Amino acid sequence: MLHVIIMAGGVGARFWPRSRRSAPKQLLDFFGEGTLIEDTVRRARRLTSIECIWIVTNPSLKEAIQRALPDFADDRFILEPQGKNTAPAIGLSAIHLARHDPDSTMVVLPADHRIPDLDAFETAIHAAAEVVCGREMLATVGIHPTRPETGYGYIQIDSTAPPIAPNVFRVKTFAEKPNLHTAQLFLDSGDFLWNSGMFIWRVPTILEQIAEFLPDLHSGLMEIAASWTKPKSSEVVQRVYRSLKVISIDYGVMEKARNVCVIKGDFGWSDVGSWEEVWRLSPKDEKGNALRGNHLAIHSENNLVDARDKFYALLGVRDLVIVETEDAVLICPREKSQEVRTIVEELERRHNANHS
Amino acid sequence: MLHVIIMAGGVGARFWPRSRRSAPKQLLDFFGEGTLIEDTVRRARRLTSIECIWIVTNPSLKEAIQRALPDFADDRFILEPQGKNTAPAIGLSAIHLARHDPDSTMVVLPADHRIPDLDAFETAIHAAAEVVCGREMLATVGIHPTRPETGYGYIQIDSTAPPIAPNVFRVKTFAEKPNLHTAQLFLDSGDFLWNSGMFIWRVPTILEQIAEFLPDLHSGLMEIAASWTKPKSSEVVQRVYRSLKVISIDYGVMEKARNVCVIKGDFGWSDVGSWEEVWRLSPKDEKGNALRGNHLAIHSENNLVDARDKFYALLGVRDLVIVETEDAVLICPREKSQEVRTIVEELERRHNANHS
Repeated sequence: MLHVIIMAGGVGARFWPRSRRSAPKQLLDFFGEGTLIEDTVRRARRLTSIECIWIVTNPSLKEAIQRALPDFADDRFILEPQGKNTAPAIGLSAIHLARHDPDSTMVVLPADHRIPDLDAFETAIHAAAEVVCGREMLATVGIHPTRPETGYGYIQIDSTAPPIAPNVFRVKTFAEKPNLHTAQLFLDSGDFLWNSGMFIWRVPTILEQIAEFLPDLHSGLMEIAASWTKPKSSEVVQRVYRSLKVISIDYGVMEKARNVCVIKGDFGWSDVGSWEEVWRLSPKDEKGNALRGNHLAIHSENNLVDARDKFYALLGVRDLVIVETEDAVLICPREKSQEVRTIVEELERRHNANHS
Repeated sequence: MLHVIIMAGGVGARFWPRSRRSAPKQLLDFFGEGTLIEDTVRRARRLTSIECIWIVTNPSLKEAIQRALPDFADDRFILEPQGKNTAPAIGLSAIHLARHDPDSTMVVLPADHRIPDLDAFETAIHAAAEVVCGREMLATVGIHPTRPETGYGYIQIDSTAPPIAPNVFRVKTFAEKPNLHTAQLFLDSGDFLWNSGMFIWRVPTILEQIAEFLPDLHSGLMEIAASWTKPKSSEVVQRVYRSLKVISIDYGVMEKARNVCVIKGDFGWSDVGSWEEVWRLSPKDEKGNALRGNHLAIHSENNLVDARDKFYALLGVRDLVIVETEDAVLICPREKSQEVRTIVEELERRHNANHS
């Protein structure tokens, strides 16, 4: 069976003031079409039935997620005591699936991305699932790049090897977020794809790879799995998690494993990584303004206004992000919106719990 | 006796959203030191007793002004049925004063200016009052210019004539708001002063000059004065005002009269003409930000934030004006703040009565 794991533990500090601890990015509705996690579930349902869709998150977010996804009962959740990045979350999900369905195929989807072309998405994931089904391979989804983006990691195709299947290639290397010059080289080369953070593999395969490259995580996972038939299982999970290293699956496994392939996707994917990206993806007026809420824009261009309460009058401003919540307003240039987390950090430093 | 007329009929559309029809500029507190009209009364009291201070305004503003000035009973108000610029307001005030005290000296002060140095102000006005007391002269106050300001009119001293008294000069000409090049020439010449809109003259003198240069206004005023002893006086005022031309005292009288002098003032005067000017006059942090309300400014310089309700986070923005009221927020570059009235005009055009 094909199971989908939706990774929904993120905090999304780059979307302050809309995102808060109690309302991280995956629970926000940026485009008036529902929250990103609802959108992700809609995608997951193209791939499998609801009994095979699981949400990995932490206990403090479960209730808010259930409000957004009323169809998801308690047993649909895989709860981490604390966030330790993607490798532990994926490992924990893998042992859960192994318990239900030892030979299942596992599709990992971040809860907070946006994909408009569902048909192309479905085709790509099914193709990748077919590839990993017959082979001991780890598949990742690489997005056909459309601009020299410096906000994403990249995956380089091994162009010397023949394709494994149509649009499925061996991976030569993973590259961190590049500077603009390097991003342009990547784009020009034609061998580099955006790293989408979506993965497809069989459960036994990923557990073997974790055993090889992250043995401490693997033994922790085995300890957790062994505790399920015993009392005080939750204490074991708590204890194991406290000891786990914070590490991503990319860094911990994908960059080291030999049998990695990438399926090239071209379905309008975005990681919705900043207010800049929300502006890019939003419908705009003839002056390039993306405006939600009650507003008037005079001699103003290429702004994002996300107002919920007051009337906003813009006069002669350009390239600004203006976001209003019930109690706070953010004003920054679009190009600075990657740095919004510094506001959250500063507020936390000031112990200003009311606004962080 | 010396009487002070406080001109308080202005609407101050350049201070939207803080200023509204019901709360024009003179009723706003920009610096946390009380409303501008309270400040003007404080100045007036340096010159005369409260029984000799009068407020000219329109009936719709009277109640709001009385809330700001509880010492001012109904009989302190000179009410115009509608605003017709300064010449009719000054003429109406002059006939009121003539009725109470025919030979009084009249000092005209705009209600919405700011003057920090009260001692220097008092000295200047008393000196001007002394000059006009013995002569049939119209005195105006000219401010020593400190920058090539394009937002003010200018008064040129007649430097060929001897001073009438220390710091009191004959006027050669009045100049409209100049462009920057001309403003710099004015500043360099040393002969030009800012036109402050403050006037000092004897009541008989101004009425004679109105009779000479604005005969229609004068006959209307005589009709109003004649009606005071008769019933239906208010109907006469209404009817006369409907027929009056909209005209300023500068254009209607001062620029044409021969016996005009100017007293040079140097007391930190400002007309508080725009949000830019409010920023200039406000205390600022080490980054040049003038910030009122709950805020956080990171990598942000030379902004004016006047927040009353929500928490404002600024990241990487400079030279902006951000003003929040209960229901609206203005965001514009400081240098555009002279154009804020276009917002009010646009809102009126849309019949958006809620926000104009």
